[in-house]
Parts: sequence; structure tokens; C-alpha cells
Amino acid sequence: MNKREISKSALGRIPLYISYIESMPQEVETVSAAKISRDLGLGEVQVRKDLAVICKNGRPKIGYNRKVLESSLKDFMTVENGGAVIVGAGKMGRALLEYGGFETYGTKILAAFEKNIEHPVNLPLGKRILPIGCINEFCAENDVKIGIITTPPESAQSVLNLLCECGIKLIWCFAPGRLYKPADVVIQYENLALSLAHLKLQNRSINETED
Amino acid sequence: MNKREISKSALGRIPLYISYIESMPQEVETVSAAKISRDLGLGEVQVRKDLAVICKNGRPKIGYNRKVLESSLKDFMTVENGGAVIVGAGKMGRALLEYGGFETYGTKILAAFEKNIEHPVNLPLGKRILPIGCINEFCAENDVKIGIITTPPESAQSVLNLLCECGIKLIWCFAPGRLYKPADVVIQYENLALSLAHLKLQNRSINETED
Repeated sequence: MNKREISKSALGRIPLYISYIESMPQEVETVSAAKISRDLGLGEVQVRKDLAVICKNGRPKIGYNRKVLESSLKDFMTVENGGAVIVGAGKMGRALLEYGGFETYGTKILAAFEKNIEHPVNLPLGKRILPIGCINEFCAENDVKIGIITTPPESAQSVLNLLCECGIKLIWCFAPGRLYKPADVVIQYENLALSLAHLKLQNRSINETED
Repeated sequence: MNKREISKSALGRIPLYISYIESMPQEVETVSAAKISRDLGLGEVQVRKDLAVICKNGRPKIGYNRKVLESSLKDFMTVENGGAVIVGAGKMGRALLEYGGFETYGTKILAAFEKNIEHPVNLPLGKRILPIGCINEFCAENDVKIGIITTPPESAQSVLNLLCECGIKLIWCFAPGRLYKPADVVIQYENLALSLAHLKLQNRSINETED
């Protein structure tokens, strides 16, 4: 499969497909594009086209083997290059630093940086918190491709500017509020408050429309 | 606006619209359904219909006032009832416990529960970590509607069962892996590893298709 074949908007739907398949009851063995499109509220033609590019094993009237489709989607999401650094070693920063799940999709969190420390802090599993003053040198030496911002919102813009100076083009931002960025930098904002609000609404919708 | 008017699949798109509007450059004052549908890769008719239900102020050929649309979408996402508890007071659990942003959308995180403590631990701002043995009584007394699971994956199923015993129907789960649940319980899985993988792919897509 050629990863160029998929559009940017199709790319945005792949995480939805993976979450959907992961949440299917374990005994279900096959799944069709028609069912996925109905359950996710997406156009059937679109889903059919997205899946056909990523997994060649769909069969007419049967659909896809669930495990094959899941692993094809996950392989597609895996990019095996470059590490990530975190800026802001508060609770969220440390939680991400010590979370092991990122390596599933090929990302290694190399270190966290913090302005309120003077000396490196060593954590279990070889993870480290380093003074922010070391970040330029660290990024240059370690092929860092991703910067994760977990500072308070008032520091986020200056941290973004610093990460851009270090040559980082991919930013994952947990601080609320929008940042000004160069055109060639991609920022993905993570809004946990919105995720939780969404859970509450799902329930309201079920209660009100299925009674 | 009647919140019943919107479908479950439309509901899933509202967080996308909010993130999209938040990421628009600050000087942009209006936005049209056509532009949103193009940029998000969604059908224009669908976007037009979703927005029309939530915000009545769209104008032909001009679109929506950006601030009015943003606040209409956020109001729609806000549900002002019931609190949440966290089970598992490791780094992620504590990060969520002390994160202030959930109240923006009407959710109060009341306490975290942990099996490895015997006595309550008081944190700043009135937040508390309580022994897991207190959870039934706490939920009954505090109108708890949401349970957040931030335990290691091997404990997640037993924690889910416990939350169901406490009468909680809405679960937000940070532990990887799928759980067996009663039919009337809604689980939303949060997969941070997949979010980060998505950021990396966005960049690959831009590099490869826009050169």
C-alpha cells in the first residue's frame, strides 16, 4: 500500500475507525464498510474508499476480517522515526513522560523540560526531566521531531516559539488557547475538557432518542 | 434550540467544529459551512444541517459570525449536572483531578479513589484522594454521574464493575484495552497514543501531497 494514496481528510477518519473496531464486542469476527458508516454517521462510499486503500482483504457481502482490518489500520498509523520532547513537567507532562503506550505507534518520548529546575532529574525507565536551557542542544543531538506542550497557558506561546527555534515542526498542545505559528508548523490541540463533555452528551442523546 | 433535534452522529462532529473554529487565525471574523466542510473533509449538506440546528445566525453568502458560532457550539456541549470521580490516582489520575478545564463544560471532578491508600489525602483547592473502600458511599451522597478510569489496564475491568455497582452509567476510560459492560453503560475510550500518531501522519500527508 502506498501511503500517498490517502487524502488528509481520510487520514482524520482513521483514528475513528480504529476506536470503532477496538470497541466492537470481542466475539465479532467480521465488519463491513456499510455497518461502520452507519454507526459512525459517515457516508458509505467514503468509508468504503478509505478502507479499500488501507486493507485489500475486504470480501463482497462479508466485509473485512476484524483483526486484519484493525492491524492494517494500526500499521498505517505507525511512523517509525524521530522522538518527542515534552515541555512542562507538571502532572500532565509527567503522566505523558511515563506513559508507555506511545511506542505502540512508533513514537519515543525522550525527555521532559522544565524551567523550574536547575539540574537533571532521573526517573525510572531511563526517563529524565532536564532544565529548559538544555533544549536546543538536546533536540539537535537527538533527532527530535515532535514537541509536546504541557505548560500553563500563559507560557505556551513562548514555548512554541522556542520549539520552532529548535527546528521542530510538529506540536501537540495540551494548553488551552490558540497559538500563533509559522506556516510550516503543524499544531494539534488536545482538549480533554471537550472529550469529557462529549461523553456526557452521548448519554443525553441516547436517553432522549431511544426511549 | 431543542437539544433533541440533533442526531448522535452529528453530536460526534461538534467537537470537530469547535476545535476547527478555535484554530482559525484570530483576525478571521466569519466562517461558512462550505469552508468548514472543505477543510474538515465532511459533506457540505451535512455541515450546513448540523450548524443550522445549533446556531440560527448564519447569513447567506457570508456565513456565521465566528464568535457567535463558537459560543453556540460550546453552549450546546455544556451539561450542568452531576459530578465525576476518578479511580486510580497515579500521574494521569492526579493530572485530571487538578486540571481546571472541565468546569468550562459543566463537569466537576469531585475526588479520586485509590486502592493503595488507607486514609484520605487532601490536595490544594479542596481536591481529595480517598481510599477505594469509600467509593459506594461517596457516589450515593454526591450525585456522581461519571466515572473516569485511570488505573493500569489489568485493573480496569474490576474498576468498571465497581463503578457500575455504584450506579454510574458514563465511563471515560484511559486504560488501553476493551471492557465488558452492561448495555445501558456508555464507555468513551481516550487513546492518547493514537492522537499523537495522528499528528505525525498529518505532517507526512502535508509533506507528500503538497510538494
